[in-house]
Amino acid sequence: MAASSMKALRFHGQKDLRVDTVPVPELQPGQVKVKPEWCGICGTDMHEYIAGPIIIPSPEKPHVLTGCSLPVIIGHEFAGEIVELGPGVQPGRLKVGMKVCIEPTLFDDSCPPCLDRRRNCCDKGGFFGLSGWGGGFSEYVCLKEKVVHALPDNVPTDLGALVEPLSVAWHALKASEHSPEHSALIVGAGPIGLAVLLCLIARGCRQILISEVSPQRLKHAQDIASAHPDIEIIVIDSTKSDVVAESKRRCSQGNQGPNTAYDCAGVQVSIETAIRAVRKGGLVCNVAVWEKNASIPMNALVFGEKKLIGVATFREGDFPEVIEAISTGKIKPEKLITAKVALDNAVQDGFEALLKSREHVKILIHP
Amino acid sequence: MAASSMKALRFHGQKDLRVDTVPVPELQPGQVKVKPEWCGICGTDMHEYIAGPIIIPSPEKPHVLTGCSLPVIIGHEFAGEIVELGPGVQPGRLKVGMKVCIEPTLFDDSCPPCLDRRRNCCDKGGFFGLSGWGGGFSEYVCLKEKVVHALPDNVPTDLGALVEPLSVAWHALKASEHSPEHSALIVGAGPIGLAVLLCLIARGCRQILISEVSPQRLKHAQDIASAHPDIEIIVIDSTKSDVVAESKRRCSQGNQGPNTAYDCAGVQVSIETAIRAVRKGGLVCNVAVWEKNASIPMNALVFGEKKLIGVATFREGDFPEVIEAISTGKIKPEKLITAKVALDNAVQDGFEALLKSREHVKILIHP
Repeated sequence: MAASSMKALRFHGQKDLRVDTVPVPELQPGQVKVKPEWCGICGTDMHEYIAGPIIIPSPEKPHVLTGCSLPVIIGHEFAGEIVELGPGVQPGRLKVGMKVCIEPTLFDDSCPPCLDRRRNCCDKGGFFGLSGWGGGFSEYVCLKEKVVHALPDNVPTDLGALVEPLSVAWHALKASEHSPEHSALIVGAGPIGLAVLLCLIARGCRQILISEVSPQRLKHAQDIASAHPDIEIIVIDSTKSDVVAESKRRCSQGNQGPNTAYDCAGVQVSIETAIRAVRKGGLVCNVAVWEKNASIPMNALVFGEKKLIGVATFREGDFPEVIEAISTGKIKPEKLITAKVALDNAVQDGFEALLKSREHVKILIHP
Repeated sequence: MAASSMKALRFHGQKDLRVDTVPVPELQPGQVKVKPEWCGICGTDMHEYIAGPIIIPSPEKPHVLTGCSLPVIIGHEFAGEIVELGPGVQPGRLKVGMKVCIEPTLFDDSCPPCLDRRRNCCDKGGFFGLSGWGGGFSEYVCLKEKVVHALPDNVPTDLGALVEPLSVAWHALKASEHSPEHSALIVGAGPIGLAVLLCLIARGCRQILISEVSPQRLKHAQDIASAHPDIEIIVIDSTKSDVVAESKRRCSQGNQGPNTAYDCAGVQVSIETAIRAVRKGGLVCNVAVWEKNASIPMNALVFGEKKLIGVATFREGDFPEVIEAISTGKIKPEKLITAKVALDNAVQDGFEALLKSREHVKILIHP
């Protein structure tokens, strides 16, 4: 007989995460029940922990699609095993016992962006693990079958938990129309910056500059660079060098600067660096969520005919492509995992550990 | 015998424009000497008059390409007649007596953007009529033959003087990849906003919204709308209506808002309106020069996957296309000319008249 209750990490408010005992979610028609094995802590989770509720709906304003508000189960970067298929699930693609990872987008399937295969821009959109209906830091989840993606045998579930952040980076490269002959600058070597680095490598980029302030994060970037001696990866310590000047000086194509810059930090200095460093006619892709408005030097966009685009999560197609790239060895994400922690210790050894030091990239929780 | 001196309107400093007597410029090899007949006052000229020197080089920092600094002859929206061809000018395309208009870009022809046919992004770029080497508010100018464009018989030089601002708009539509089935919002119905309106009409756009605060400018937009009853042109008084809400409500494609928004005002409220009004996945094109940084709601770009691009003047190919569009009647720019003034009265009846009232769109000066 299936268990009727389970442990889950729930967000109750700022700095208030609790491992609660909650009912196991009921499997609905068209849904798949998954037992998460590994779930990563995302920068968004950290934002909520430190300063939330931000995206998490507060009781005064329940989420428009889920109707939920805090406390909610969190965790949206996860992979696990299928334990049950709901009625009406199409036979064949998914089976009980299969290892899978989850695309944690909530969407209504009927608005103009959804009909245009841009469910990441859904008018009622939300996130599984933030907006209600469950999350990956729990023993069981129930989800629509279309967001459940099978993992090949050579992609274990700890790497499966990295598919989500890697898909954010993958989507950013596609949205910015990056092509292999383009040079790129990444501003910020946190988890998303490093994911962009890995995806640029996987997609054949030959010259990548990456800047960062933290010595620990610089070391992570340097480790990835050292593992790819065939690609020119220039790691810039932005406490010591002028990133804009270095970008122009070291970019191989006539001191013009990189074709594309990725702001993976989302702060004033990072977006301004990206805009000034990118070449005329170049594109700046913002991959970060912002806490406030940015002060943008518009004339730098105007006289350099530069483009600034925002990207949000991922779209249909990104997850399967990233899974394929991991399976074929094009993306080698193992180095991103810096610790593995049990659910009961998630707050102390996960969230608090990330707060205290930048030596971690991705901490995975085993629910 | 040719005259050795001529009258020219020179910028000496803020609010200090003088009709000076200066030497006629000497014709260099590869250059064409033109006698301007009509030259329009641009918003950029007005900026310099009110608050300059801004783009005009001051004596402490002469222009990198021309070596000039103030006083400089101004005027960059002009057309006239060829009076002499310099040695080495390729025979055939240009002839003495021919009516021509001028592409007022200064460029060095050797930097990466120039070699890539983006002379508007030249590393040493400047503007004829702002950066030195002469300007259109004078009796004679000498220019490289490649910036001199022949006018067909049915395009008189007063309309020829409008090719420059229309090319700014034309280039913005090309840079923003506007296609006829896209709806568009224009924020600001000044000369550039109205030029964007005329070019959108010429390029087959079926639904155009245009917002403005000034009653006189709203009337100009309405006049153009009335002349094109076959196209849905929605003129929005932004002192009375919420432009973002109106844009979504009246846009024919499911309340999503327009595909593209053109900021033709370059102030905080206009860029924010453009970003919020454009649909998810849409593009905001900034066609204005800015006096300071803008405060940009980055998360609106992120969660809506919106694009913000800057455009500068025009590129190779834009002038001939605009001249062709005027000649074939696709662009009907006559209504943009609201006054014609002699050079001696340029300050009083031109610059000061534009300062005092928004009833004018384009005032042409006859040098």
